[in-house]
Amino acid sequence: MSLKTSPARVENRGSPCGLRRQRLFTPGPTPIPERVQTAMAGTPVYHRGPEFPALLRNAVEGLQEVFPTSYDVFLLSCSGTGVMEAAVANTLCAGDRALVVQAGQFGARWTDLCRAYGVEVVEREFPWGEAVDPQVVAEALRDDPGLRVVFATHSETSTGVLHDVASIGEILSDTEALFVVDGVSSVGAHPLPLEACNVDLAVTASQKGLMLPPGMGMAAVGPRVWKAHGRSRLPKFYWNLEDYRTSMSEGRAPATLPVTLLAGLRAVLQMLREEGIPRVWERHARHARAVRGSAAALGLTCFARRPSNALTAILLPGSVDGVALTEYMRRECGVVVGGGLGEYRGRMVRVSNLGYVDDTGILEAVTALEIGLRQTGWEFEAGAGVKAAQDALTAEG
Amino acid sequence: MSLKTSPARVENRGSPCGLRRQRLFTPGPTPIPERVQTAMAGTPVYHRGPEFPALLRNAVEGLQEVFPTSYDVFLLSCSGTGVMEAAVANTLCAGDRALVVQAGQFGARWTDLCRAYGVEVVEREFPWGEAVDPQVVAEALRDDPGLRVVFATHSETSTGVLHDVASIGEILSDTEALFVVDGVSSVGAHPLPLEACNVDLAVTASQKGLMLPPGMGMAAVGPRVWKAHGRSRLPKFYWNLEDYRTSMSEGRAPATLPVTLLAGLRAVLQMLREEGIPRVWERHARHARAVRGSAAALGLTCFARRPSNALTAILLPGSVDGVALTEYMRRECGVVVGGGLGEYRGRMVRVSNLGYVDDTGILEAVTALEIGLRQTGWEFEAGAGVKAAQDALTAEG
Repeated sequence: MSLKTSPARVENRGSPCGLRRQRLFTPGPTPIPERVQTAMAGTPVYHRGPEFPALLRNAVEGLQEVFPTSYDVFLLSCSGTGVMEAAVANTLCAGDRALVVQAGQFGARWTDLCRAYGVEVVEREFPWGEAVDPQVVAEALRDDPGLRVVFATHSETSTGVLHDVASIGEILSDTEALFVVDGVSSVGAHPLPLEACNVDLAVTASQKGLMLPPGMGMAAVGPRVWKAHGRSRLPKFYWNLEDYRTSMSEGRAPATLPVTLLAGLRAVLQMLREEGIPRVWERHARHARAVRGSAAALGLTCFARRPSNALTAILLPGSVDGVALTEYMRRECGVVVGGGLGEYRGRMVRVSNLGYVDDTGILEAVTALEIGLRQTGWEFEAGAGVKAAQDALTAEG
Repeated sequence: MSLKTSPARVENRGSPCGLRRQRLFTPGPTPIPERVQTAMAGTPVYHRGPEFPALLRNAVEGLQEVFPTSYDVFLLSCSGTGVMEAAVANTLCAGDRALVVQAGQFGARWTDLCRAYGVEVVEREFPWGEAVDPQVVAEALRDDPGLRVVFATHSETSTGVLHDVASIGEILSDTEALFVVDGVSSVGAHPLPLEACNVDLAVTASQKGLMLPPGMGMAAVGPRVWKAHGRSRLPKFYWNLEDYRTSMSEGRAPATLPVTLLAGLRAVLQMLREEGIPRVWERHARHARAVRGSAAALGLTCFARRPSNALTAILLPGSVDGVALTEYMRRECGVVVGGGLGEYRGRMVRVSNLGYVDDTGILEAVTALEIGLRQTGWEFEAGAGVKAAQDALTAEG
């Protein structure tokens, strides 16, 4: 076991015992439960056939419980970025001004999307690892009451930060501005109650807390969005949520949906209801606490000032090569974690506990992190991370 | 067995033998081969991990064989309509004029897409069931040499017509206009050689001839498209093919791709190569001939003047309720075929032989059609359809 092993040799060798098995602790895609795999393996449902409307209705009602919200939920064949684009295209005109509050790679995507459509962006950017200060939203709106939409991120996947959507929403409660939130990596791990947080439109995607493969975006859409939609002049066809509203109310979709993911979602929703959705959120909280406790016990720093329960971004000491570490964990332990993005490439591991992860899974991830770190020369008490995780997992809630 | 059975009773009863099994003969989704199901059931590939670039490269090279083309092929997380929208957004400006030649529901989608983006459409529409006369393209371009793009459909899924893309391409060979073709239901069933047909951009999707679930769109893009892209001012982010070109050349994608479909596509491409891609096209031709022969033997009319080998649209006599017929075939025989779309709802069955369908499969479809027709009072010699199909399937090629 050495970090110096060449890639070619690695591919042939696998783990020391000769067996290769992969465990995903990446913040999307996440592990697919066996029941969900089975549900997806059947003959695809014909989207013009008699079984489709009930499948669609089941998905919508289940997602309303998961967000939670009573608003309409629409399903689109796309990634998270696609449904984010739909949020922009349905609420704005070229030349409109919008506020983006962000502190990471996915927050910055709102800015890129708005600019691609000719929307003028007022951006309030915070350093990676910090949470957006909700007061900047109040200030920005005071300076420019013409801001039509405020875009924010709930769980920022590049930094592991949970932004304070509730406080931002409170500030927006007596304004005309719409509040649009990226819940791609938060939904399923944290509640995102749209009405209580004054969120008008929230988006998420299939491959995170919803335990499905990537390929389906979801948008929860409140009543104020339709007024904005009415005046929006941005060109849209595939992203036109009005068409989804019309079609889905009739049990159809305006474009072919990924029907195998819908069949999988039916099984996912059943699993989430069996566990109890509040308990699913508690599980994510407990698992994230365990990972954070392990990192601290290993002498490492949690990057996020206000950590998300979806994933933990762990900053590595300068002496540790993060790319080699994650590759080692994957190759030798079968534990796949995310690396750092952007300027944090090689300086971070991102350990996700999203979705189909149980307590033993958390211990697998932590033990692999320890084994990997031992190769790097980083000094710590072997087993300390696993012990901290065990303590956190067995502590009385 | 009666057409009068109520839906509620049907759901509980299934077929007379009490067993329910579904066989798809719908023009998308199509049956998923067992090998492909297995390939998709594994742990999802992490799109930022070391296995992803090879998976992506394999997909691109295989699709180049299937179209066939030497042009770049890009993969997008979307339905066929989504990748059609990408074709519009990357080649035009608002106010540009484009020609749409169409004769069916999916051909008309080009018009809707262009208009949604403020493109001025010159439309040449033919009655459903007819093929576009390529000469109208020459005339339209003579009348208006400023037409920047010609949009056409290869296999029109609503009518079962194969449009003469080669002849349209020949007319376009000495013009500046780009040629963009919807190959959603043709690719895999018919060759669509982009270079030989002067096609600059062709799109297809996963759930037709490619034997995958819905959720992935593909665009084959020739060199002249990039010049049009350079002057195109239509807003785009998710659909920006330039971003796909940059990312995919580095083994990445600008948005999360449906990695399970990519894993499935690897298995699909292996199957297509084992059979031999020209033989796959021949199989589709032979199967479509068999279905057409059966329809004639049953006294029914094939709707398409110039039939596609992807599906056969069969016009029903006025006395036959097509909705009840397809529902009966599904319920009692487990054979799912498409019904008529638009004004042909209830007046047509569309029997698809796309993808994972063998000779016995064709006989299943035809025998179910016969059983269904027997309930309707339509008079024909029982077994005549099956006999005609057997004759066609066993005839020396």
